[in-house]
Amino acid sequence: MARISRILVETVKLRASMSNAAVNFAGLTGSIVAVFAEVGDGRGECVGYGFGSIGRYAHTELIKERFAPRLLNSDPSEYCDEEGRLDPVRVEAIMRRDEKPGGHGERPVAIGAVDMAVWDLIGKLERKPVFQILSERFNGSSMDNSVSVYAAGGYYYGDGGLGRLKEELEGYLSLGYDAVKIKIGAGSVQEDRERIEAAIDCVGEGASVAVDANGRYDCETAIAVGEAIEGYGLRWYEEAGDPLDYRLQNSLGKTYKGALATGENLFSIQDVRNLIRYGGMRPDGDVLQMDPGLSYGIPEYVRMLGFLESNGWSRRRCFPHGGNLFNLHVAQGLQLGGTEAYPGVFEPFGGFGDDVSVCEGRASLSNAPGIGWESKPELMDWFLGME
Amino acid sequence: MARISRILVETVKLRASMSNAAVNFAGLTGSIVAVFAEVGDGRGECVGYGFGSIGRYAHTELIKERFAPRLLNSDPSEYCDEEGRLDPVRVEAIMRRDEKPGGHGERPVAIGAVDMAVWDLIGKLERKPVFQILSERFNGSSMDNSVSVYAAGGYYYGDGGLGRLKEELEGYLSLGYDAVKIKIGAGSVQEDRERIEAAIDCVGEGASVAVDANGRYDCETAIAVGEAIEGYGLRWYEEAGDPLDYRLQNSLGKTYKGALATGENLFSIQDVRNLIRYGGMRPDGDVLQMDPGLSYGIPEYVRMLGFLESNGWSRRRCFPHGGNLFNLHVAQGLQLGGTEAYPGVFEPFGGFGDDVSVCEGRASLSNAPGIGWESKPELMDWFLGME
Repeated sequence: MARISRILVETVKLRASMSNAAVNFAGLTGSIVAVFAEVGDGRGECVGYGFGSIGRYAHTELIKERFAPRLLNSDPSEYCDEEGRLDPVRVEAIMRRDEKPGGHGERPVAIGAVDMAVWDLIGKLERKPVFQILSERFNGSSMDNSVSVYAAGGYYYGDGGLGRLKEELEGYLSLGYDAVKIKIGAGSVQEDRERIEAAIDCVGEGASVAVDANGRYDCETAIAVGEAIEGYGLRWYEEAGDPLDYRLQNSLGKTYKGALATGENLFSIQDVRNLIRYGGMRPDGDVLQMDPGLSYGIPEYVRMLGFLESNGWSRRRCFPHGGNLFNLHVAQGLQLGGTEAYPGVFEPFGGFGDDVSVCEGRASLSNAPGIGWESKPELMDWFLGME
Repeated sequence: MARISRILVETVKLRASMSNAAVNFAGLTGSIVAVFAEVGDGRGECVGYGFGSIGRYAHTELIKERFAPRLLNSDPSEYCDEEGRLDPVRVEAIMRRDEKPGGHGERPVAIGAVDMAVWDLIGKLERKPVFQILSERFNGSSMDNSVSVYAAGGYYYGDGGLGRLKEELEGYLSLGYDAVKIKIGAGSVQEDRERIEAAIDCVGEGASVAVDANGRYDCETAIAVGEAIEGYGLRWYEEAGDPLDYRLQNSLGKTYKGALATGENLFSIQDVRNLIRYGGMRPDGDVLQMDPGLSYGIPEYVRMLGFLESNGWSRRRCFPHGGNLFNLHVAQGLQLGGTEAYPGVFEPFGGFGDDVSVCEGRASLSNAPGIGWESKPELMDWFLGME
């Protein structure tokens, strides 16, 4: 039976010198996690690595004080399945013991970081890539061969203006991407229109450009901006208002005819249920961006998919936030619509690594065991530096 | 102009050997905070103390890594008002800089802890009790002379059964309380009924006994339990289901005729708006229990009150969770309906201190400056031990 023997956690600083309409990322940190297990098959201690998904700072002490001790103080029979293998669903339940309901912030990121490391560990123990294990465990062994990805960039850098934006987007095209996302909402609507037109000019058509307001607008502004940009036929219009303002989302959906996207700042099945119940999201075109690494990990994410499918949604409408290698496994193994990519942004958490090639907007994973962090040397240096 | 000169934070362990229907509190921790300021009036450095409200564990590192540095790196002109006094609303805005929307858990407790210390500090600087300052700043100088309080206890202790429960409740009556709250939901409905009947037997009538299921029930069970207990005419039926399951709350409100209560696990104005929009809460009898110490502090709490009042609610329907001395100031200064009390529970965060007398279910604060922590010697020892 696998026994979790040690858990290491450390805070690291991400490279992110930009802003969106709501926040400046210059001080952004994250937590890296190593989960060690002994399986008694002569291999000694095995290790899996993960991190707390991007944008919510580090949660090192939450893991050290609450979530890791609960695992380390549990008997292996509590977190292993009948065959003695680590069961991430039981792992999650143990980490969430004695936690009150509600208040789904920070905590889901901390638990998501440990979950990510556990999947990496299981992949190494079973000598399989994580997308395959996810597919076997939660998707009837079906999986995709490649994943639709889009380059999420177009942040505000404080200088360079439209020239810099176009240069950045051209760089993504040269890497094999054919769709991009840019930020709006920090300046005037006219400035947003200029940014969008510059992006369309680069990428070729509105259907390949998504825009993201990062929750900046009130209801009236969200609708007015929607009217101002509807004619571009954009890929989607993301997080117009506060992620928990379901009424705003609902009102916007009644006026904006193109696709709307939201969900990256919903961290629990409860929040997702409320979005679907009250937010007026349209299963035939809208996009849901919940990120397992921000929301208690894969077990909760699978619960979200189950809820969505029992409410008339296809999982193909899901494109997780986060732009990291783990979510590429999730999208490939669970057959999502695709996933965000952060080429060159939020490094080294962001980015898919040297093993992943992007071609005509699709990415394919190698068969490296676990998550394949070894293809991200700088991140591996951080992981190895914990010991 | 007041300059915040130092912020100290430490993790402490609370005394809480009991359970509710959802969690065991044996490992419960909290964070204590000291905020120091220099005002240049010859008094040298002044200090205020606070803590993260009860039930959500410590958030020491969140404060150390994010919220304290943002304050300490700000110019005093950013957090002082035109007269050079500390302005808690600006303090809160600085702490929330570069924080993404959504995810209102943990973070609001951390910021609430600093906010509590800032109010204590302001009270000491102005040589006034905090209830008076709150009244002057946010309530047109109106305030109450005393506050309706109820003893929240009746937890599960694993032994003793109904005898222990009755003994506990009789203790509250002897302290001057005339209303109590007990936990339900951990056992069968029949066991709950026995607990309720024992409590009514002690306190005299159902109208003096509230019950709290701590979010344990699904919709069907919540309604069935409601039917089973409606005849007792209880003070209120609290957190029947998940705090974010507004649809459950709405369905329950359509069948249960007595008062319903919820809100202690809603930590943001966004969550409260959703409860009011979708939860079917009834302004003529239901009770809202948001706790400033769990939800970004007084500035956000005042926003909640403003939203409620503009939606047909009286602030007299608000009874904050938390059972601590600070919330007694909040209830007295902002003229709420009352507040929870934890006599002997979650000490030393819980409990009002030696200065506060409870008589016929009402509590009165002394005029000690600040929050008056000096009347809680054990807590003061912790605070002083930080330096």
